[in-house]
Amino acid sequence: MRRIRVSLRKEVDASYDIVVEAGLMDRLAKELSGLVSGGRCAVVCDFTTRELFVPALLDRAEDAGLSCDVLDVPPGEASKSLAVFEGLLGRLRDLRYTRKDFVLALGGGMVGDLAGFTAGCYMRGLPVVQAPTTLLSQVDSSVGGKVAVNLPGAKNYVGLFHQPKKVLIDVRTLQSLPRRELLSGLAEVIKHAVIADAGFFEFLEQGREALLTLDEEAVVRTVATCCAIKAGIVERDEREAGPRMVLNYGHTIGHAIEDAAGYALTHGECVAYGMRAEARIANALGLFPESDLARQERLLDGYGLALDPLDMDPERLIDLAHGDKKNAGGRITFILPTAIGQTTRRDDVPLDLVREVLEATLARA
Amino acid sequence: MRRIRVSLRKEVDASYDIVVEAGLMDRLAKELSGLVSGGRCAVVCDFTTRELFVPALLDRAEDAGLSCDVLDVPPGEASKSLAVFEGLLGRLRDLRYTRKDFVLALGGGMVGDLAGFTAGCYMRGLPVVQAPTTLLSQVDSSVGGKVAVNLPGAKNYVGLFHQPKKVLIDVRTLQSLPRRELLSGLAEVIKHAVIADAGFFEFLEQGREALLTLDEEAVVRTVATCCAIKAGIVERDEREAGPRMVLNYGHTIGHAIEDAAGYALTHGECVAYGMRAEARIANALGLFPESDLARQERLLDGYGLALDPLDMDPERLIDLAHGDKKNAGGRITFILPTAIGQTTRRDDVPLDLVREVLEATLARA
Ligand SMILES: NC(=O)c1ccc[n+]([C@@H]2O[C@H](COP(=O)([O-])OP(=O)(O)OC[C@H]3O[C@@H](n4cnc5c(N)ncnc54)[C@H](O)[C@@H]3O)[C@@H](O)[C@H]2O)c1
Ligand SMILES: NC(=O)c1ccc[n+]([C@@H]2O[C@H](COP(=O)([O-])OP(=O)(O)OC[C@H]3O[C@@H](n4cnc5c(N)ncnc54)[C@H](O)[C@@H]3O)[C@@H](O)[C@H]2O)c1
Ligand SMILES: [Zn+2]
Ligand SMILES: [Zn+2]
Repeated sequence: MRRIRVSLRKEVDASYDIVVEAGLMDRLAKELSGLVSGGRCAVVCDFTTRELFVPALLDRAEDAGLSCDVLDVPPGEASKSLAVFEGLLGRLRDLRYTRKDFVLALGGGMVGDLAGFTAGCYMRGLPVVQAPTTLLSQVDSSVGGKVAVNLPGAKNYVGLFHQPKKVLIDVRTLQSLPRRELLSGLAEVIKHAVIADAGFFEFLEQGREALLTLDEEAVVRTVATCCAIKAGIVERDEREAGPRMVLNYGHTIGHAIEDAAGYALTHGECVAYGMRAEARIANALGLFPESDLARQERLLDGYGLALDPLDMDPERLIDLAHGDKKNAGGRITFILPTAIGQTTRRDDVPLDLVREVLEATLARA
Repeated sequence: MRRIRVSLRKEVDASYDIVVEAGLMDRLAKELSGLVSGGRCAVVCDFTTRELFVPALLDRAEDAGLSCDVLDVPPGEASKSLAVFEGLLGRLRDLRYTRKDFVLALGGGMVGDLAGFTAGCYMRGLPVVQAPTTLLSQVDSSVGGKVAVNLPGAKNYVGLFHQPKKVLIDVRTLQSLPRRELLSGLAEVIKHAVIADAGFFEFLEQGREALLTLDEEAVVRTVATCCAIKAGIVERDEREAGPRMVLNYGHTIGHAIEDAAGYALTHGECVAYGMRAEARIANALGLFPESDLARQERLLDGYGLALDPLDMDPERLIDLAHGDKKNAGGRITFILPTAIGQTTRRDDVPLDLVREVLEATLARA
């Protein structure tokens, strides 16, 4: 018997910058050309973001010495599939892309996840730059390196941790975003505040008007704060060993509602219902003060999130929550707030309590 | 403008052991059960390796407390495809595999690459254990973490670096291996000796009989030496930034021949022709002494490798070599031997010389 040790202990530096700015799109070509010397840029986008943002990029590309190829896919979650992934790989191959080139993800979280996964696998990994254009992707999905596509009925089941080379966020892109998508992103914004930053929560309470009218200063501050919060969490736990779970606040029940709704609700709407329910659970367990619960309720109300009753069976939601891949050993794990800006993790919540709280939350009682 | 730094500088330890042993299969279940506590094992194999090795594994699995699911695919390079990858992902999903479970690649390099890539992507990464059963996979593909599937006409274009948790090599599996596959692996064995180990080259000169009759001591020594050589190279260059290119000796021309032959030749046969040609180039450039060239010729002759003339157009091979993704900027990069056990990297070889050497090599003149 012979035993050979392969020693692969190494220092890896996958650090990167996130730039948040109003009007950044105007100098996107320049930012990119400085990043990867000589490489070509495969711009992955959907038809919507192609129309909105690609012409300006191409206009300026030549001057910036940037060579672009546009790879567009239909908008919508259905494009986050292995079939579309395969199509993109084929196009990169036909264009003879090599590891000296890179991928730009220009769009919402769907585009970011799809483009990031494609980049991560093509020739064992091209760099990807994330240029998120929805609020959800700016405050959440573009940061942290989680990329994926879906299997039928199994969201994000095929993917990687593939950190971006850079994240370039132009909050002005939000001007064209449908209001419902904006609100969906705001739910994640509120989540960030509840789990990590009481001062930011206050800002959201006072800045509602400014945010909803897309006041640039308010939006830059909001997006930058969320990115900093998420970055801090990801730094401690790049591969979801533990601390990163705190980002799941509102998501245990939120995901179950998302499944049950068959995606008739946006992700953020579901998370908003999830936060309402999970905060109540925390309160019932004596973890989360009444006054903080009321503040969260008011904030969600103020942003118009999770206002309507939902016609769903609590029992089914509990089943779906059990099935969640993020849970271990059959117990439902919850991230529960203990104050505005603080959380704890619990997997001992009595199912009766969950049921009771779900009934009240769904009925908006 | 706000700039947020995501600091992901970290110590990563992806080290692992390679165990080389005659009869290791007999205690495979036990080895595996010790590796991942409580996890289930998805055994990826092809129909051939399923028949040969899975019954013994399953027989012993229960006693070892190991729960196995067998995921088999048709043998042959055609299974290294996105379609088969998708099928495997679906099966893992149907079986409700999670990140606590792991994948065993039980077969040749095709299975190792396919299973490794599938493991690397499913739920953003399950551990994979490599149990290679061909000589080629034991001395080459199972070590180093390169995993991939093919795009149509583009070998290994979709993949990852996904280091195995462990490599378990039973040289006794080679007893059922068709002689042609054995020879294919021996070409890579000879390559390892030429690029890195003059003493090992001598052993191959003297141990021909023992090796070809699969004398267990000789085979264990051979496989272990090759693994140690490859491990040493991979340790210095996990992601192919530079030093790892030395493994491409014989492959610049070998890959071109493989493409031109439409896979009628085995990989090792093509590499053997490639080594013959590239050693001649090195000799013509005054880099590689005549006597060493003759020794390599004799060794390849002795193992019955690359003996027949090939009816191929040198010009076409040069074109194919240019197209090789491993080359930069249109020039052909060669790894050339400077002595038995030593190489240098050159991208200034005159095309006329390549043409001339190819003509002689193809004619076996
Ligand atoms: N990787 C992660 O960590 C992570 C985290 C959260 C969510 N996600 C993923 O993100 C996806 C959801 O992201 P999303 O909400 O951005 O969805 P999305 O990318 O599908 O975008 C929503 C819609 O907005 C359109 N759009 C995008 N930018 C626009 C703009 N500036 N103006 C007008 N329309 C625009 C899109 O074309 C699309 O129709 C899901 O697939 C989810 O799984 C990933
Ligand atoms: N990842 C890497 O670093 C790397 C390096 C070199 C080659 N490769 C890949 O490896 C693959 C080639 O590997 P391969 O030559 O092992 O091919 P293979 O896996 O296709 O096996 C060759 C044949 O031998 C059969 N077989 C396997 N084990 C057997 C046994 N013990 N007894 C009898 N039959 C057996 C298989 O069923 C198959 O028909 C290619 O896809 C190549 O790209 C990868
Ligand atoms: Zn979310
Ligand atoms: Zn090879």
